[in-house]
Order: sequence, then structure tokens, then C-alpha cells
Amino acid sequence: MESSERDPRKLIRRMLAENGPASALEAFLDNLGATDSLHAVFSLSEDEQRKLLSSLTPDRAAALVEDLPDGHVADLIEDMAPEDAAPIVEELASDHRVDVLSELDSADANAIIAELDEEDASEVRELIIYEPDQAGGLMMTEFASYPMAKTVREVIEDLTGNAVDYQFLTVHYIYVVVKAKKLKGVIRLRDLVFADHELRIGGFATPAVTVAPDTGLDELEVFFAEHDIAAVPVVDDRGFLLGIVRRRAVLEAIAERAEADHLKAAGIIGGDELRSMPVLTRSRRRFAWLSMNIGLNILAASIIAIHEDTLTAVIALAVFLPIVSDMSGCSGNQAVAVSMRELTLGAATPKDVLRVWRKEAIVGLINGIALGILLGAAAWAWKGNPVLGLVVGGALAANTIVAVSIGGTVPLLLRRLKFDPAVASGPLLTTVTDMCGFFLLLSFASMVLPALS
Amino acid sequence: MESSERDPRKLIRRMLAENGPASALEAFLDNLGATDSLHAVFSLSEDEQRKLLSSLTPDRAAALVEDLPDGHVADLIEDMAPEDAAPIVEELASDHRVDVLSELDSADANAIIAELDEEDASEVRELIIYEPDQAGGLMMTEFASYPMAKTVREVIEDLTGNAVDYQFLTVHYIYVVVKAKKLKGVIRLRDLVFADHELRIGGFATPAVTVAPDTGLDELEVFFAEHDIAAVPVVDDRGFLLGIVRRRAVLEAIAERAEADHLKAAGIIGGDELRSMPVLTRSRRRFAWLSMNIGLNILAASIIAIHEDTLTAVIALAVFLPIVSDMSGCSGNQAVAVSMRELTLGAATPKDVLRVWRKEAIVGLINGIALGILLGAAAWAWKGNPVLGLVVGGALAANTIVAVSIGGTVPLLLRRLKFDPAVASGPLLTTVTDMCGFFLLLSFASMVLPALS
Repeated sequence: MESSERDPRKLIRRMLAENGPASALEAFLDNLGATDSLHAVFSLSEDEQRKLLSSLTPDRAAALVEDLPDGHVADLIEDMAPEDAAPIVEELASDHRVDVLSELDSADANAIIAELDEEDASEVRELIIYEPDQAGGLMMTEFASYPMAKTVREVIEDLTGNAVDYQFLTVHYIYVVVKAKKLKGVIRLRDLVFADHELRIGGFATPAVTVAPDTGLDELEVFFAEHDIAAVPVVDDRGFLLGIVRRRAVLEAIAERAEADHLKAAGIIGGDELRSMPVLTRSRRRFAWLSMNIGLNILAASIIAIHEDTLTAVIALAVFLPIVSDMSGCSGNQAVAVSMRELTLGAATPKDVLRVWRKEAIVGLINGIALGILLGAAAWAWKGNPVLGLVVGGALAANTIVAVSIGGTVPLLLRRLKFDPAVASGPLLTTVTDMCGFFLLLSFASMVLPALS
Repeated sequence: MESSERDPRKLIRRMLAENGPASALEAFLDNLGATDSLHAVFSLSEDEQRKLLSSLTPDRAAALVEDLPDGHVADLIEDMAPEDAAPIVEELASDHRVDVLSELDSADANAIIAELDEEDASEVRELIIYEPDQAGGLMMTEFASYPMAKTVREVIEDLTGNAVDYQFLTVHYIYVVVKAKKLKGVIRLRDLVFADHELRIGGFATPAVTVAPDTGLDELEVFFAEHDIAAVPVVDDRGFLLGIVRRRAVLEAIAERAEADHLKAAGIIGGDELRSMPVLTRSRRRFAWLSMNIGLNILAASIIAIHEDTLTAVIALAVFLPIVSDMSGCSGNQAVAVSMRELTLGAATPKDVLRVWRKEAIVGLINGIALGILLGAAAWAWKGNPVLGLVVGGALAANTIVAVSIGGTVPLLLRRLKFDPAVASGPLLTTVTDMCGFFLLLSFASMVLPALS
């Protein structure tokens, strides 16, 4: 068919099947443009993506890999032969290379590292010990450093002579060191413009602000908010320069973390999901979360089961149980979202539980009364029984206060207890508010049973 | 009390009440450090935050404002006297200044613009016409441009002589123009190092890649993925240089948009919420979302109401209604999250509805069967009735397939119809899956009623 012939995915498939030259594939991808070629790649199966990476030249494959999420890249290269994966990994910038390798099992990572050239391999081994969200994991080791005794002219000549080696040097600083490693200061490249070319660089380097390799992402965010520089040098406790962390890497890591939190809050746990992944991987990852939730749901519903008598007497209550459950979830999730937001902004800390609770309780009271009136009126209108309206509206109002109190404070408490609030806040909230909501509705009803039945 | 005396919030309050000198307040905030002072500021009421901004020197107030969300800053300066707000606004970088002013009502914005000095005011009027998420809204107008005939030496002398004026010039490019405005090319500042100082800059400027002022955020993201530069010049259709968009501004805008999407998905609509905002603003914003949801919930529950006979016959079904509702919501939300993720990454487009549906249906089938077995077994064990288990498990299994089908495709359909998928996906999903789940459970039950009661 004409239309499928123009489908880029199918054309790539055919080119892969025909084992044509890398240059033809590359020209085709170039022609598609960045957005469409990325979309086409994502719509291939993982095996086809692996075949595509192996068919391209390593530097072109590395450029493609830069646009894919790290976890997905790890899934791809994990199942490639190490000798096919290594040339691609070698073409990545040092920070990205380590991010990808640290997502692999250590056996798989070591097999690839063994195929790297000696210098890259030893560098990876040094970097892989750091967490991906620490300065050591975010830093790149491509930087320009020179001894203090060099002159401006010598530095400029070296930089101009080595243009190819410095392709990764997008940052505009040079670092001044003694004994090859110990950081003495920093010079902005633009300041070299203004300097006498015969000066020794040690003479006008300014002291550098630095971070330690175990500096966390939040601290780095604060650091870059306070310092208007494009990159910060990372030094160990001996003062040795290990690498540089670019502002851009920090911004990207923060965005990735926010995205991961968002996925986790929605129940995608244990790794990213893309629909190009194998079906069983996708359903297994989702099921881990679902099976926990069904347990919690059965627990919450047991509150209904023990009030079966009340329900039998007033069957209309069954209509309102899911409403109370769902609306309390909505109110509570709003409070969770504001707490997560305030934690991110630094507007709230885990110590603010009491202040946050007071701020939530008042909003819960106002909105609880408003929602209670709406639902109570609907119940009254439906059955013509004002007492049913009071019971239903009163239960929703009371449970709204409970829901925002829990929703607002649980993320802070989880953070304080070193749990991940993005993962655990939702299930905790819905289970407790469901139990409480069912209990309130059915006990209120049992108190005025004669007026209801 | 000793402890409250050390509470930074209370100390700031006391200093504000005493109307002490700005320098004392500033020294106090400096001493606290960035994180703690930001936290203290957020924990003040909005009126106190306004008083604090007015009490600081304008440049210090502007530095504080840089760390607060734009919408919140707009709330603050909206209720300040324009003559108090203007000096602070004047100290902001041009891109940030416009972001804040564009969040205001036009009357409030104009009152502040009228207080700005002539040059800043006319610049703001030119910039405020662009959407905040377009190149025109993201660009800053602080850049260095020189006519082609200038020599390298003249440019360097100008740059060194005007160090203070160039405090915002964190970007390392100079732009070469003709007739004061028309962009001819760009030179990296670091390349000036290597250039003969007597050369005219027109001779070695390289042609610049540019964007139009109405370029959207997604296009800018693609642009910076393809071009390894720190900032891109924005030119209008006559080729006039309007400003520059820094990579950093694009990364920050993308992170802000993701954060806003996350808040909207959780039901915080119509603006950001911080707990320092007035209670009625907070409850009103939340209630708009809740009142819509309660309507949808009542609609969904009406399915239960019309099956009251079945429920009366088998009261145990009431226990499973909230479980089916909640579990379908969980499964559906996972699919929503993956679709939002794939839309963000460019792995899915609004045209992929059919492919996404196929990929979801198979996962829904597998997980639906697994969840159905778990819940069916629980029902069987509870009442000792295998038919109840079959009904409950079958309904959950079928509804899981429905839920992931809707969850996976609705974000794409909403995007295609130009609705915001972050806002509308959740309520649409839960309403339809609730209705469908209640219907499946109660109709399955009514089909085998004799075996259940």
C-alpha cells in the first residue's frame, strides 16, 4: 500500500532487513528530522532498536542514544553483544556514559567496560562508584586544566591546536592546577581575551568555588541558584580536581527526577515504561503496584463488610460509598500535590507537619462543608429523606477534613522517615481515607437507622 | 520562649514590626543561608511577604523574587503600591520581568509599567505580547551586538569598559549586526581570544542559527537538542535581532510546565497553590475541581442506583463496588502516566491512538486476569460462593481492559482535540471506568442472581 510505504517505521524495518549500508540509514534518519526520527525509533520493537543501533556508525548511534531515556538505553545495550555496545558507549560524553552503565547489572556493565579502551575503562571505574544524583555521578571529566606556570599564550596555543579533542568543552572555563591535579583556581575563557598573553595563568586565576563528589542534587540546585556560573568543579578531600558539573546537567537531572516522581505517583514503579518494551516487562512492573493496591483495597472494604447489617437496612448507602471514597481521594490528592510542590520549592520541610496540618484543616473544613451540602442535597432529593442527606453530607464533610489532613502531612512524614513520598503517599492516603470514610458513613447511618429505613 | 525566639519566621516578623533598617534584615537573611531564608519567607503570610519585599533594597528584593514561582510573585506585587513594586521589577532580568508582569491583570501590569523608566517600559511593552512559552516570552534582551565594521580591539575595549552594564551577559556570544538591528552573524567570545585584534568582526562572524519569536517551547527543546549552543538569537521576519533565548531558560520552562501539569493532574487548577496564600483563595481554587468531580461521581453512582434490586438481593456486592472503582482507576492511571510520558518524549503522537490501544489492551488482559483471580479468590473465600468469585473477578478483569484502553488513548485524543490532557484525563477516566465497572459487576450479578442469593 502507498500509505504504509511512507510509514518511516516500515521503511526503517525494510532497510534493517536488507542489511544495507549505515550511510543509507543515516541519510534516511537525517531526512526525517529529529522529531520524526525519534518517533520512528520509539515505535520499533526493542530488538529492532538494537539492530538499528548496531547498523549505524558508533558516533551516530551514540547521538541517537543521547535522546533516549537512560533506563531504556540500558535495556537496549544490556542485550547487545558487549563488543557491539562498547563502541557506542565509548562515543558518549563521560557523564552520560556512566549514567547508562550504572543502570546495568554489574556483570553486564563489566563486560562492556572490558571492551572499552584502557583510559576510558579506568575512568568509568572511578566514576561509577558515585550515585547518579550526586555531583560525582553528574560530573563530566572533559575539562581543560593547566599548570600555574603556563602562560596565556601557551594555553591559547594548546586550545587552538587541540580543537578536536575539546569537542566536549562546551563550558567556558579553564582550571589552574598544581602537581597535575590539585585545583588552585579558575579563569573564564572570555577573561583570557583581556589578559596579557605573556602572563602566567597562576597569576590571575581566581579562587574557585567547588563542591565535593557526594554533593546531592538538592544542594547542587541551591548552589547554582546562588552562583551564576555555568559549571562547578568537583574536588575530593585532598583538593584534587575530579571533574565539572554543568548547570545544564543539574537542571536536566532535576527534570528527570520530577518526571520519575510523577510516574511513581501514578503507579509506574521499578523503572520507566515505554510501549516498545516487551509486554511481560510492562505488565509485571505495573502488576507489582496493582497487587499491593488490591490488598489495601480489600482491607479498606472490610470496613463495609463488618457493617453489612446497616447496608442491608438502608441499601441506598451503597450508592454513596464509592462517592465518599473517590471524593476523599480527590481532596486528599490535592493536599498531597501541594505538599510535594512545597517540598520541591523548599517552602515546606519535614518539620512543618503541624503548620501544614493547620493550613489544611481549615481548607478541608470549608470545602468539606461545601461538598457535604452538595452531596447531602443530592441524597435528600433522590430519596426524599433529609436524614439520609445529613448522614451522607456529614460523612463526606468529616472525611474531607481527614483526607486533607492526611494528604498534606503524609508526604512530610514519609520524607522525615526517609521513605519516598512520591511512591507511598497515594496508597497510604487512599487506604486510610477509604477506611475512615466507610466507617463514618456507616456508623452515622447506624446511629439514626430508624429514620433511614 | 527560647525556642520561638530562634524561629527565623518570628524574628523576621519582629524585625518587620520594628521597621528596622533594610541592612539589618538583609544581614539576617544572608546569615540564614539560601535554603533556610527561602523557607522562612514562604512561611510568612502574603502580607508579611509584601512588607518584607518593600523593606529590602530593590536589588535584594529582586534576588529574593528570582527564587519564588512567577505566579506567586505576581500575587505579591499585584497588591503592592505600583511605586513600591516598580523598583523591584526594574531590577529583574528582562525575561523574568515580563514573565511576572504577564501573570498580572493588564490594569495592574500597566500601573507598574508606567512607573518604570522609559527604556525599560517600552521594552516590556514590546515583549509582553508574546506567550510566556514562546521564544519571544522566554528571550532576554540583554545581549552584546556590534556593527560589522568594528575591530576585535574595539569590541574588547567596549566589553571591558562596560563591565557593570554587562552583568546580565552570562552568555558567551557577541552578535554582529548591520544598521543597528539586522543580524549578520555570531562570534563566540572565546574565539575572540584567537583572533587578530585589528580584524573587523564582520570578517569572521559565522552565520547564526536563529528562531522566530513565536517558536514554541517544544520546538525550542528540539532546537537545543540539535544545536550544542548556550543561547539562540531570536529574529523577526525582517531579520532584526530581538533578543536571545538561553538553553537554561528553555530547560527551566520545561521543568515548570511539567510541574504545572503534575499539579493540574492532581486537581490544583487555575494557578499554583502555596500554603502562604489566603485560605479562601486556596479553598476556592481547589473547590472548582472538586465540584466538577462530585457531579461526575454522582453520575457514575447513578448506575448503582438503577441496579438497586440486584444489590438488595446480594448485599455483598456493595463491598466490591468501591474496590472495582478504585482498582480500575489505578490501572487506568498507569496507562495515562505512560501516555503522558510518551507524549513528552515524542515516543507517541496524537496519531498513535490505535497502536497505543493495542499495546495497552494486551497488558490490560494479562493484569486484568491476574487481578480478577486475586479479587475473585478473596470473594469466594469470604462468602464460600465460587459464583460470587467469578462475577467479581470477571467484572474486575473486564473493567481493567476498559480502564487501560481509556487511560492509554484519552491523553492522545485530548491532545488531538487541543484539550489539556493533564487536566482532563483523570476525571474522564475515572467517570467512564466507574460507570463501566459498576455496570459490569451488577449486570454479571443479575445474570446469575439465583446462584448468588
